[in-house]
Amino acid sequence: MALPLLSSSYLPLIEAELRRAVGDGPEALRDYFVMMRYHLGWVDEAGQASPNGSIGKRIRPLLCLLACAASGGEPGRALPMAAAIELLHNFSLLHDDIQDNSPLRRGRPTVWQRWGVAQAINAGDAMFTLAHLAPHRLAERGVAPEVALAALAEFDRTCLALTQGQFLDMRFEGCERVTVDEYLRMIRGKTAVLIAACTKLGALLAGASAERQHHFEQFGLNLGLAFQVHDDWLGIWGDPAATGKSAASDLEQRKKSLPVVYGMERSPEFAARYARPHAPGEPVAGLAAQLDALGARAYTVQAAQSLTDEATAHLRAAAPAGPAAEALWELTGSLLKRNA
Amino acid sequence: MALPLLSSSYLPLIEAELRRAVGDGPEALRDYFVMMRYHLGWVDEAGQASPNGSIGKRIRPLLCLLACAASGGEPGRALPMAAAIELLHNFSLLHDDIQDNSPLRRGRPTVWQRWGVAQAINAGDAMFTLAHLAPHRLAERGVAPEVALAALAEFDRTCLALTQGQFLDMRFEGCERVTVDEYLRMIRGKTAVLIAACTKLGALLAGASAERQHHFEQFGLNLGLAFQVHDDWLGIWGDPAATGKSAASDLEQRKKSLPVVYGMERSPEFAARYARPHAPGEPVAGLAAQLDALGARAYTVQAAQSLTDEATAHLRAAAPAGPAAEALWELTGSLLKRNA
Repeated sequence: MALPLLSSSYLPLIEAELRRAVGDGPEALRDYFVMMRYHLGWVDEAGQASPNGSIGKRIRPLLCLLACAASGGEPGRALPMAAAIELLHNFSLLHDDIQDNSPLRRGRPTVWQRWGVAQAINAGDAMFTLAHLAPHRLAERGVAPEVALAALAEFDRTCLALTQGQFLDMRFEGCERVTVDEYLRMIRGKTAVLIAACTKLGALLAGASAERQHHFEQFGLNLGLAFQVHDDWLGIWGDPAATGKSAASDLEQRKKSLPVVYGMERSPEFAARYARPHAPGEPVAGLAAQLDALGARAYTVQAAQSLTDEATAHLRAAAPAGPAAEALWELTGSLLKRNA
Repeated sequence: MALPLLSSSYLPLIEAELRRAVGDGPEALRDYFVMMRYHLGWVDEAGQASPNGSIGKRIRPLLCLLACAASGGEPGRALPMAAAIELLHNFSLLHDDIQDNSPLRRGRPTVWQRWGVAQAINAGDAMFTLAHLAPHRLAERGVAPEVALAALAEFDRTCLALTQGQFLDMRFEGCERVTVDEYLRMIRGKTAVLIAACTKLGALLAGASAERQHHFEQFGLNLGLAFQVHDDWLGIWGDPAATGKSAASDLEQRKKSLPVVYGMERSPEFAARYARPHAPGEPVAGLAAQLDALGARAYTVQAAQSLTDEATAHLRAAAPAGPAAEALWELTGSLLKRNA
């Protein structure tokens, strides 16, 4: 049970570093900061400390610190980068909510709903900037300039991949057909590269060898892909009692998840049917059964399994050490075996 | 006439560095790159090289290279940062066009008009990222890691001030009253800090002393402020034949420019009148005359003059040398004495 122990020690450090990274400003900029603090779950819409605001699981910064510690580094060395990654993730959610027209996040109105699209775009830009300012604190942690610069370059390449994944995701919404390859490229950029950056940067800041960094990176990348593919499986075949969503909720919303794009590739009939909106009240159970018959369910289970195998092989090759290694294995298990 | 000579030598270098910074990608990401190239004026909406696309004046990167050269540095050392600054400026225009609901930029449809708001937000995010990736090429130019890191930190602080200026600008649109102090804080963030970053970073990358960097920074800051204040004067009292806009066009659009916020502070009657939309066909010449009577015209001329004096004093104190110094004086003169 290394994970609960290390989490309870790391999470307050992460939150404190995030608060330092967001910082403060004069009264004239009050709402500028309130928007970001609200999105991060620290305050309510009026800017008051929100005792019941959910702050998210902070899994990414946790992974970064664990990878640093498991590579033999003092986890505090990675804290500024862990904060940067969490801010980057939250920047992407802030803009994503506008792009998806989502009214709610974690049960509260989204920033654009509360402050309008124009200010929400700017709040995202501000958070993106703060994500870039955070790593400049690496020097305080004793990280040499050339290492900090290499970490920042890696961070920026991650940002680029993220915007490319987001481009593809939005583009796919307007496409009738998406191939499995295109889909995998999209989730790689949209989800997996950020997880890969967490684990790679943790190792890099610990001073791990290039080979060890590579294995940590590939562990994170495959973990991220496996997580998303498992999520896609849950979105169709997950137990509604466990997921809290309606059965086959992804099919209700006509999402183009992995089972669906696999089915589209296999069957033009399925693709044509999926291209038209459901009639009101039309059950989607038949679509789930069709996908099952096309082999999409088995394919998805198999894909999640082989990505999981890949992730665990790289984690083993990365030779993580100490309680943080144990915690990484536990976290990997909990992310990939969840049923909700 | 050092400016035309140096411009014609620097501008192609800037354009080439910008193209390197934007880069390329696989066919699946074609439109991701087309959106940015289109916004930068290189291609038309179909992604074809646009022989008549206006690329903007590239004044910011030019200032950066001139400040570097005038500080005794090889201007090529500052090129990656000059490209970063131009990309940052263009990122801000891309999001600004969405926030302002502007259909046109340089005579062509804006990115959001052509590709939709969601993709345009992402294109801005991508350009913001490329602006951050560009300075990682400083190493190729022989810039030491600690200098590159210091330059990046300065760049990121500039980004933060930019988002704060943008926040204030949008907030003011919904306010009945804005004070002169609030207005000056806004244009400082929205316009002047980026010009200050150009000149300061040019000097920094040339290896100038902290004191010289400071004077270059203050030169840029006051130049940016003076430019904006002069622009505000032109927007009301500029010659329509020269500006190509209708007389008092800023008053037509009920902009809260410096003369207006000055007038609002002096006269509650003017403030109350300005708070209501113009009746159809109602002439705004009377408002311009009111502002004149309130002393807003004289105040604005005086403010532009004292900011210009401040800028030139700092440029003198920065002790620029060689043809680049001459070019900086010419550029300063042309920016502040223009009538359009």
